[in-house]
Amino acid sequence: MNTSTSSASVITTPSLLLLDASPRGERSHSRKLAQEFLTTWQTAHPAGNVVTRDLGHEPPPFVNEAWVEGAFTSAEGHSTAARAAIRISDRYVDELLAADEIVIATPIYNLTIPAVLKAWIDQISRYGRTFTRGENGFVGLLGGKRVRIIVSSGSDFRPEGPGGAYNFLDAYLRAFFGFVGVTDVTFVYAHSLNDGNPLRETSLAEASTTVQTLAKAA
Amino acid sequence: MNTSTSSASVITTPSLLLLDASPRGERSHSRKLAQEFLTTWQTAHPAGNVVTRDLGHEPPPFVNEAWVEGAFTSAEGHSTAARAAIRISDRYVDELLAADEIVIATPIYNLTIPAVLKAWIDQISRYGRTFTRGENGFVGLLGGKRVRIIVSSGSDFRPEGPGGAYNFLDAYLRAFFGFVGVTDVTFVYAHSLNDGNPLRETSLAEASTTVQTLAKAA
Repeated sequence: MNTSTSSASVITTPSLLLLDASPRGERSHSRKLAQEFLTTWQTAHPAGNVVTRDLGHEPPPFVNEAWVEGAFTSAEGHSTAARAAIRISDRYVDELLAADEIVIATPIYNLTIPAVLKAWIDQISRYGRTFTRGENGFVGLLGGKRVRIIVSSGSDFRPEGPGGAYNFLDAYLRAFFGFVGVTDVTFVYAHSLNDGNPLRETSLAEASTTVQTLAKAA
Repeated sequence: MNTSTSSASVITTPSLLLLDASPRGERSHSRKLAQEFLTTWQTAHPAGNVVTRDLGHEPPPFVNEAWVEGAFTSAEGHSTAARAAIRISDRYVDELLAADEIVIATPIYNLTIPAVLKAWIDQISRYGRTFTRGENGFVGLLGGKRVRIIVSSGSDFRPEGPGGAYNFLDAYLRAFFGFVGVTDVTFVYAHSLNDGNPLRETSLAEASTTVQTLAKAA
């Protein structure tokens, strides 16, 4: 009997879920930084599992009435449309539940997250799967996961920066991930990226350093 | 010459743009309240123009790379995809610019606006059409319009209510419409709508009264 030894020697394979919310391809700074995170993370975790999900180019469907039926009524009575809608949602939720670490790379659009990222959030907000009801209200079910959010923007939207009062992404994502149980949320800002902004190169270099530090620590 | 008399006798025909963001049909409370607004408004303005846009059932496309090209580069060099993307955006913007009064009926999803409403916002945020750059930063171009936002929710998300700290819709929409120049923004909350909530009927009745008062004042 050496249960404790056996337990101590278990090797856990870490899992990373990487979401890109930019509609841009090569020219996307958030995407480039996410790739840097990925490369560094894979070096640190050669056996790690990686799932990437390109929301910018393959947007999740919007929640519709069939989705609402699928999510809030019991499976036996589901219409074909409800089953189809919830199957898609389940795939996003499964990917999320399987991950230890979630990296979201996103631009800031019109003061907050782009619609594609909200569409993903609406897909993964599932009663009984990512949150439930406890004795004192709702309880998140994603405790123990880490979320890293790489935010790119033309201006300086860092909460402490000159555009901080117009940043409705940061507080919202913290609250939302808190709602589903994630308390370990880190933001990386690649800001001031408009052509000709004198802070641009420094900002990109700092974001790159932070991203790599986070990827090694993961 | 009686320019002043002529000018004073001009009859302006008011225009209303009504947006429904709920994916639900008959069962949507926000939709029902928007219909009440419409009926009362039409009685008060028999000659008024009305455009309704059902975002919940006909979601706007997500902003994509072609859209970005269309919105930020000059028209002569546009690809076919960019022209198509911006034609759709222009239609949403034209509707918005033509309206004196905008009514948005929306549920609150996962602490903020549903993805379809963000998709619409991303479509109508257009440099040179709804905002521009002034001497001291951006300037909104929608000054003088009024926005009424009818928000339905299962819990009580009124800013001053018990769930107010989890309401990320209110402050965001105020800031966004402020950004495009609209300062006259009014919220109507149909809250506590979950089955069995003892506040439900009172809340619905109050929302209905407020909606009709606003529609008459319009």
